[in-house]
Amino acid sequence: MKKLLVTALAASTALANAAFADDAELRAEAKGYFEAIPLQAPMLEGNVLSRDRIELGKKLFFDPRMSRSGLFSCQSCHNVGIGGVDGLETSIGHGWQKGPRNAPTMLNAVFNVAQFWDGRAPDLAEQAKGPLQASVEMNNTPENLLATLNSMQPYVDEFKTSFPGEEDPVSFDNFAKAIEAFEATLITPNSAFDKFLMGQDAAMTDQEKRGLALFMDEGCAACHQGINVGGQDYYPFGLVEKPGADVLPEGDHGRFAVTETADDEYVFRAGPLRNIALTAPYFHSGTVWELRDAVAIMVDSQLGSDLSDEQIDDITAFLGALTGEQPEIVHPILPARTKATPKPYTMLTEQ
Amino acid sequence: MKKLLVTALAASTALANAAFADDAELRAEAKGYFEAIPLQAPMLEGNVLSRDRIELGKKLFFDPRMSRSGLFSCQSCHNVGIGGVDGLETSIGHGWQKGPRNAPTMLNAVFNVAQFWDGRAPDLAEQAKGPLQASVEMNNTPENLLATLNSMQPYVDEFKTSFPGEEDPVSFDNFAKAIEAFEATLITPNSAFDKFLMGQDAAMTDQEKRGLALFMDEGCAACHQGINVGGQDYYPFGLVEKPGADVLPEGDHGRFAVTETADDEYVFRAGPLRNIALTAPYFHSGTVWELRDAVAIMVDSQLGSDLSDEQIDDITAFLGALTGEQPEIVHPILPARTKATPKPYTMLTEQ
Repeated sequence: MKKLLVTALAASTALANAAFADDAELRAEAKGYFEAIPLQAPMLEGNVLSRDRIELGKKLFFDPRMSRSGLFSCQSCHNVGIGGVDGLETSIGHGWQKGPRNAPTMLNAVFNVAQFWDGRAPDLAEQAKGPLQASVEMNNTPENLLATLNSMQPYVDEFKTSFPGEEDPVSFDNFAKAIEAFEATLITPNSAFDKFLMGQDAAMTDQEKRGLALFMDEGCAACHQGINVGGQDYYPFGLVEKPGADVLPEGDHGRFAVTETADDEYVFRAGPLRNIALTAPYFHSGTVWELRDAVAIMVDSQLGSDLSDEQIDDITAFLGALTGEQPEIVHPILPARTKATPKPYTMLTEQ
Repeated sequence: MKKLLVTALAASTALANAAFADDAELRAEAKGYFEAIPLQAPMLEGNVLSRDRIELGKKLFFDPRMSRSGLFSCQSCHNVGIGGVDGLETSIGHGWQKGPRNAPTMLNAVFNVAQFWDGRAPDLAEQAKGPLQASVEMNNTPENLLATLNSMQPYVDEFKTSFPGEEDPVSFDNFAKAIEAFEATLITPNSAFDKFLMGQDAAMTDQEKRGLALFMDEGCAACHQGINVGGQDYYPFGLVEKPGADVLPEGDHGRFAVTETADDEYVFRAGPLRNIALTAPYFHSGTVWELRDAVAIMVDSQLGSDLSDEQIDDITAFLGALTGEQPEIVHPILPARTKATPKPYTMLTEQ
């Protein structure tokens, strides 16, 4: 009886060791590709993440009066409650116009090499200036924005406090910097994958681990790597086989519009896959609604692999393990408009 | 010297007593008309304000997937950050359509006798069902809403917990009740006026006190009374003189549409004036942007009084003292959509 117990113990230890040996190997390989999301906002070059600036940025992010119509805030398309997206194929903007591409999440976006699907903005501050001015999105102008900000004394005061010593604190650049400071705090640590990376074997299920192994061994991680499991570099969509026009609209030439280099035709930034289970629909066209379908399309078009249904399920399960702790945001109370605040303008054209 | 000091003390006591006597009189008169906003949500008949139900209601309130297009949530037009309104003349809804009337605040709305400008919904639960189905607002149907709710297990679970023992917890009625439970918590206590009502003489400025006295003595408080300084009963707009068609559009017959009684032509619920300084633009038409202008129009059309500019300033200042502590709301994290979740539908007509 005693002998039996000892044998059973030895066997269970061996099993545990074997599992650990596997996990350790998987973790070691994963650490060659990926990095865990940190608990705190990273330092930014050229932007001080002071509490004042973050708080101001939060207000600006949630303020619909930053749009020409008074209807849209950053939050409208980058909703902190649904993974930082709007859940639409492409966003609805001023006058019910549709944007050309699916709105990417701002969660963890601070870790991307550059912003937008084609990387045309080097950082989040530059990014923030885009939708504000895009006619199909917030349809605003820097002039009208500054008139709005300057019309509300609490905003003027907060710009002064957030950008101390500056001669002209209420500026379009500082507006963008404050939003960048807030967005830099919108990170989602402690996903099952991150816990596994940090040494917690049981954080991921066996299926998720199989998916992680496939993700690396089949080549997904060649593009989708780094802290955001993507978002680090640019690659042609349809490396092996071009997807159909429904998924890859022919009119959208991707990064070509930024670099005007023939090599960049249909080139996009590899999608960052953090919280990807929350951010349907997928691809820059937003036409694919199921994560599993998106994985299958990628396997076809980028890898040309012949994976089994089970393997695609496993990779999909792994992607689910990339969902982190979502940021807890207290909705800001915004300054009251004044007589000087420009009125909402909801027409499509100038009157 | 000692005598002088005594005299000075006596004089200052007399002054303080005199001021107190005035304040006490003003307070006593005010207590005949008004009541302070309480610190906590009131009990509701037929709706248990359990924490679960309030939390579920908060999620539903902030979830844009409750609208047909996926763009609008209750929060879109009743923004907790800007006094519970959208700051537009009339709201923008599905397909960029404009609603017929200015969106009233949901802050303290639980204290109104009934909901909507014409009081056509007896309570907040009934109110919540309106915009959800209005074609120019959220453009949804109860069927599509229930399909959406049932497609996300966390919602199904939360309805079960929030409506324990019910056979069919995920229902349109319970959706509305959960939202009502959350909205009942959206109250704004501790305005300067409330502090004054509760005995703090210094909470209001002299000008605000003069405004309060005028508000009662000139007749404003005949309609705008009770806990919400309005919202308690129905009155004709243009009692003495009809405002112009810009302020009172001829096509909108107010409560007549609800009661079909000739007496109710151009009759509206007296606007609740809590936080009124935050909720421009004014009137059901939303065409008046300055609070002072709104006061002047009311003085003309409802009272027929001949108040001086200073008196109108004083009343406007008093209305500013009705701004209470705005609710601090942590933005909810919403369930992720699933394969079964109806997709956003952004067209104007059925395809």
